[in-house]
Amino acid sequence: MKQKTKILAMHAELSTLFPNMPDHWYLIDTSGGVEQAIAQNGDEVDILLSASIEKLDKTVLGRFPNLKMIASVSAGFSNIDLNECKARNISVTNAPGMNSGDVADIAVTMMTSLLLSMQQKHDYIMSDSWVNKAPPLRHSLRDVPVGIVGLGAIGLEVVKRLTPFGVDLKWWGPRPKSEISLPYVESLEALAEQCRGLIVCCRPDVSNHNLINQKVLGNLGPDGALVNVSRGSLVDEPVLIAALKKGALGGAGLDVFESEPTDSSKWADVPNIILSPHQGGATYETLFAQAQLVQNNIENFLNGKPLLSSVI
Amino acid sequence: MKQKTKILAMHAELSTLFPNMPDHWYLIDTSGGVEQAIAQNGDEVDILLSASIEKLDKTVLGRFPNLKMIASVSAGFSNIDLNECKARNISVTNAPGMNSGDVADIAVTMMTSLLLSMQQKHDYIMSDSWVNKAPPLRHSLRDVPVGIVGLGAIGLEVVKRLTPFGVDLKWWGPRPKSEISLPYVESLEALAEQCRGLIVCCRPDVSNHNLINQKVLGNLGPDGALVNVSRGSLVDEPVLIAALKKGALGGAGLDVFESEPTDSSKWADVPNIILSPHQGGATYETLFAQAQLVQNNIENFLNGKPLLSSVI
Repeated sequence: MKQKTKILAMHAELSTLFPNMPDHWYLIDTSGGVEQAIAQNGDEVDILLSASIEKLDKTVLGRFPNLKMIASVSAGFSNIDLNECKARNISVTNAPGMNSGDVADIAVTMMTSLLLSMQQKHDYIMSDSWVNKAPPLRHSLRDVPVGIVGLGAIGLEVVKRLTPFGVDLKWWGPRPKSEISLPYVESLEALAEQCRGLIVCCRPDVSNHNLINQKVLGNLGPDGALVNVSRGSLVDEPVLIAALKKGALGGAGLDVFESEPTDSSKWADVPNIILSPHQGGATYETLFAQAQLVQNNIENFLNGKPLLSSVI
Repeated sequence: MKQKTKILAMHAELSTLFPNMPDHWYLIDTSGGVEQAIAQNGDEVDILLSASIEKLDKTVLGRFPNLKMIASVSAGFSNIDLNECKARNISVTNAPGMNSGDVADIAVTMMTSLLLSMQQKHDYIMSDSWVNKAPPLRHSLRDVPVGIVGLGAIGLEVVKRLTPFGVDLKWWGPRPKSEISLPYVESLEALAEQCRGLIVCCRPDVSNHNLINQKVLGNLGPDGALVNVSRGSLVDEPVLIAALKKGALGGAGLDVFESEPTDSSKWADVPNIILSPHQGGATYETLFAQAQLVQNNIENFLNGKPLLSSVI
């Protein structure tokens, strides 16, 4: 009998994503917890399924001496020590670009909520300010300048959703794109200066660590709103928190954080924030589509065919 | 010298909306408060500017014995006793359809926030649940059925904004409209049964008082979200509050209330709500456009020309 391929899901729910799993897959039982499964079967694992949130550093990878492949059911792979994988000849695949719409849903909802001061409206009622005084007039969203930082798959979905609100969209990214008709601003600093809202949805890499710094937030200003749905590394978090606390920035919507899970104590005294536990792209619907790509990648890997979405 | 037309703004901020006021207008000074202005000059007032929030019933109108016209700087006129105006031959004009986009901005932001459980996401972090456990997968907005109740100017703006989110839009109103391609559902009860979100944006009238009742909310169900940006009279508020408290309805976003201003004590123990103090259409930008229409109406009235937007 042909030996089955032993696969371990690093996140229990991942096991449920393969309704049409091939017969030659053997999905290791994680009902007693992933930790127990590793302790009992780590040395037999051929392939790891990763949700991009579990740290797969050299130490953790050392528990899988026979590992041949890591398949990330996500676009992200910053949790994986790629140097170690290269050294050990472990293939790494991801599932990019499939959750762009889901991420954009969160980004746009955060941005319109901040620009419309929805939290302040709610508080106006709950503090009974309305009983004493009609609220001041507000401004329309129409023509409010909103900047997109990075116009990849997510950025384009954000633009699609924000356009009908009539906001004045522009963008910046490290490389202008001639095929894009949206106005391009020559620098991030200038974009922040011209805009009331800024949505960060560029790909994280070593070049853009703390891209959103004191200068950018200062240019965005006391009426400005920052939304980050990319990765926490893009935003200088202590600088952001200080700006919000002293009113130098109007508000922020964050789906991603410098360190995840983020601790509530960090945010307890920070005004005008909308936080979300990195759920932008984490939907059932997208995950099933991503899982199908993962399955195809694994099958190609096992059959020696080219990988469909290879990281290394 | 030709006598000037004496005009009183029932809401102090209205006086600021006419940067190009004709010379023959005399705007009565309200710097000491509207009440004092009425006490001193009520019997000389020719025209009232209304913001649609001040009650203009028979008693109040009795303080203006020479009144000839009420010009509402708003689509609404439910604050005005129209029978009394007819009896006294007072002309009433409004400024309809100009704030539809602004109202839709609020409606859509409330709906996507509720459908995406933004408040629960925030609370997940602030209660440190994330530190203990990765959040469960969420569902995509894509294909989530959302129903529009009343497809007038606001409804159409809502549809424009929600379409790029990929939700599955349908609508109901008392009269099907052959020119609309959006799927029409034959009854409000059926629409609520088929949808997870319901946005009320129809015109309020005597026929639709408490249109959103126990049956409709029951059909919308524990995962359902109701948004009302029309008028408080459309929703049976005690029934809504009871449904939210016992989890029979998932959430609600309200810009309008049974009685305004609404009291915070009514909402203190109600979960999953987003409240706004009737600010849907109250933007500077729309008001200046509405004020221009009001000015044109007043000029036509004074010159005996047809009114541009006449209520009676």
